[in-house]
Amino acid sequence: MSKNYVNYGKCSAGKPGSTMGITGARFNLSPMSDDFIAIILDAIKQVDLSKVWAETDHISTVYRGKEEAVFDALKAAYVYAYREGVHMTLEATVSKGCPGDSDSDYTLALENPKINKEQTQNIDFPVIGKFALYPMGSDNYMGTIEKVVNEGIDRGVVTGSGHYGTNLGGSVQDVFDYLEYVSNTVGKEVSHYVSQFTLLCNVPEGEVK
Amino acid sequence: MSKNYVNYGKCSAGKPGSTMGITGARFNLSPMSDDFIAIILDAIKQVDLSKVWAETDHISTVYRGKEEAVFDALKAAYVYAYREGVHMTLEATVSKGCPGDSDSDYTLALENPKINKEQTQNIDFPVIGKFALYPMGSDNYMGTIEKVVNEGIDRGVVTGSGHYGTNLGGSVQDVFDYLEYVSNTVGKEVSHYVSQFTLLCNVPEGEVK
Repeated sequence: MSKNYVNYGKCSAGKPGSTMGITGARFNLSPMSDDFIAIILDAIKQVDLSKVWAETDHISTVYRGKEEAVFDALKAAYVYAYREGVHMTLEATVSKGCPGDSDSDYTLALENPKINKEQTQNIDFPVIGKFALYPMGSDNYMGTIEKVVNEGIDRGVVTGSGHYGTNLGGSVQDVFDYLEYVSNTVGKEVSHYVSQFTLLCNVPEGEVK
Repeated sequence: MSKNYVNYGKCSAGKPGSTMGITGARFNLSPMSDDFIAIILDAIKQVDLSKVWAETDHISTVYRGKEEAVFDALKAAYVYAYREGVHMTLEATVSKGCPGDSDSDYTLALENPKINKEQTQNIDFPVIGKFALYPMGSDNYMGTIEKVVNEGIDRGVVTGSGHYGTNLGGSVQDVFDYLEYVSNTVGKEVSHYVSQFTLLCNVPEGEVK
């Protein structure tokens, strides 16, 4: 039997595989409720996907497109899955500029990328969480991380730091605005970044910052 | 009011902040059940933590120590949280060599690092999931990723790849063995790596690879 080995020989650091500036998010919603299937599927169906390319498989969901559109759709999926009293985690990987990426599976509809904003901007609730930032193929990545973490402290949404992550807390709207700022800022400074974050709502002990 | 800004000026790529070779894992268990609190707390309490430094806060849990001990404790937390029929995600960040790390908050008990193995090796169930590998401060990271992905194909636990991740599938024991091999291999080749993975069990549609 022949095996489908991967070959990344054509990829090199600093040279994005996609020339279109595609940002993508891969994410999992985990509502800790017996009703998790209905909660996840209802939320995913409610998101207006006309400004992103989207695919849901049995492991996770991916959105690809313009950075503004990807964050808009991702926030919509999370806030639409919110149920009063239901503890839920969102785990998301947002990435841009991967040398192994390609100019496929995307939409770059240019007008009105934040198509879900009107519906989602008034759904607000407290969240806590963490994020880690991986600017790839750069020697000066700690300086880039320092800059965006300090901006988060100024905004009041970075609440501390621990091993392997920086803590987040605040309204879901403010935290998403900040995470989009992080991607936008780092994406201008390095050719390939990954932002990994986890957000929790309805935490049993309360959203202690 | 003075703000606690971060300063990473003393950190530089390629120079681990810890000189002790500490590996760490930060993780979240999300059992999608109304009983999630009992499931998580029962599992966390059952893990023998004598070979790792451990801390659980309201966001996540972290283990730090020798690589073998960290993987042993992490696998124990996951398999102890397994309940028949309960869909659950494990999201974990495993990291070693971060320039911002320090020689604190760890244990490096040298004997018998896999202290949970005897109890956990016979708890087996199918999982699916995904992982992404971030060798930091290296220009040749795609080559390192290619090598370990192809080993996973040989072992039968790497089942495909998508945007922003490589798919995993198999018995929880085989998948954890592979993830430990990945960390071990990459940790020898680069000074700082991050391995991010998500595992799912009791998937409603079945553990389709």
